[in-house]
Amino acid sequence: MAVRFRPYNPAGTEFSSDKQLKQAIKSILGYKPGNIYLYHLAFLHKSATQETNNGIRINNERLEFLGDAILDAVAADYLFKTFPTRDEGFLTEMRSKIVSRAMLNKISQKMGIDQLIQLDNSSSGTFRSCNGDAFEALIGALYLDKGYDFTRKTILDRIINRYFDMDELVNHEVNFKSKIIEWSQREKKQTRFNVVNEIGSGYKKQYIVELLIDDEAIARGQDYSIKGAEQNAAEKSWQKINGETVDL
Amino acid sequence: MAVRFRPYNPAGTEFSSDKQLKQAIKSILGYKPGNIYLYHLAFLHKSATQETNNGIRINNERLEFLGDAILDAVAADYLFKTFPTRDEGFLTEMRSKIVSRAMLNKISQKMGIDQLIQLDNSSSGTFRSCNGDAFEALIGALYLDKGYDFTRKTILDRIINRYFDMDELVNHEVNFKSKIIEWSQREKKQTRFNVVNEIGSGYKKQYIVELLIDDEAIARGQDYSIKGAEQNAAEKSWQKINGETVDL
Repeated sequence: MAVRFRPYNPAGTEFSSDKQLKQAIKSILGYKPGNIYLYHLAFLHKSATQETNNGIRINNERLEFLGDAILDAVAADYLFKTFPTRDEGFLTEMRSKIVSRAMLNKISQKMGIDQLIQLDNSSSGTFRSCNGDAFEALIGALYLDKGYDFTRKTILDRIINRYFDMDELVNHEVNFKSKIIEWSQREKKQTRFNVVNEIGSGYKKQYIVELLIDDEAIARGQDYSIKGAEQNAAEKSWQKINGETVDL
Repeated sequence: MAVRFRPYNPAGTEFSSDKQLKQAIKSILGYKPGNIYLYHLAFLHKSATQETNNGIRINNERLEFLGDAILDAVAADYLFKTFPTRDEGFLTEMRSKIVSRAMLNKISQKMGIDQLIQLDNSSSGTFRSCNGDAFEALIGALYLDKGYDFTRKTILDRIINRYFDMDELVNHEVNFKSKIIEWSQREKKQTRFNVVNEIGSGYKKQYIVELLIDDEAIARGQDYSIKGAEQNAAEKSWQKINGETVDL
């Protein structure tokens, strides 16, 4: 379904595109949206940026900024309560897995959000992360429409409990590094991890690690530990090798 | 006032340290805390880490992780609504100014939070960011104790509206780069900005810029634009030159 964007309608007349979008949100997230304008905006990719009567350019990037922060907060709350004895390094690592762009792109597709995005199809560019971006923008719209507590409950019920297996996620990092090493042995390629930069200092220091396969840089990872950054680089490389959409 | 940490007390007896801390919170944030244990924990710096009966090491780092996310969300919401016509690049930049460690350390001291922190004074280390860390942990405690909406209102009333001048913050970046350049001209020193790394790709790409004064690296900044990263590096350098506590 391609619901066309329609600017804010103060008269409150309901157009057929509003009804379609309301039904789609109801089936994806389980509730009836209030202010449908917010949801139209959430699916307006920057390639399809529009201009208001006042000359302001609008797309889903502001809502993405807001939704990204709300999703981080909800994930932090969830992890804090789910893992009461684990330290903040573990919580940080788990959250970065949950909210990774690759993960959000995947979930966005599973939920059918990709079907609602309004892109400029005539543009020659590829929009590798537009699904994850729209997903975050949708969270932003939900938050503005229904408030934090409702948003938190919806994210838990409809997203975290449905699409995430926490046990799998805890052990997730081991898999990707092993996968890369097994794959490169099979393919007779050499893999090498290089620390290319350090950001911050003290116990807030983060490492940036690059994975090279046969001396070609494939992807970079970032984390509070070198091990974590290697795993992050391995995961991105694995996705790249397998042709998945991923931000590098 | 030095309130000593006391582990969770299921019997609910109120100790004099609880009363003291409740009064301090009331005067700093304007409300009476419910679960005082959370606030004791918020002020327990990692240098004074304690162990529970179950052998779990506790300090304020988990609460800091949570509070950091909540503060980001509240700041995102505030900026989204305060600047309805500005793009997400502006919002991101403004938020990074509001929640910068240097800013949080300063506000923490202005609010008197530094007086409540429990450190290991025998340790020889310096704890440059312990004030900002405790500030975030306090937000985490407030969120768990009173919920998101109350936390948001408290942050707006007691922190953002009292300690931040948004107009000043919007123009903030110009000041630090100018300050550094004026200072170095006065001191007959040469300044140079170098892009030392790039992270991510596409419109999510961030730059890391280093400021060198007479070829000595002073500080690094990170931002979505080179200009922003330069300003960030200039601000940190300015604080370093002036002997302020700052995370590099």
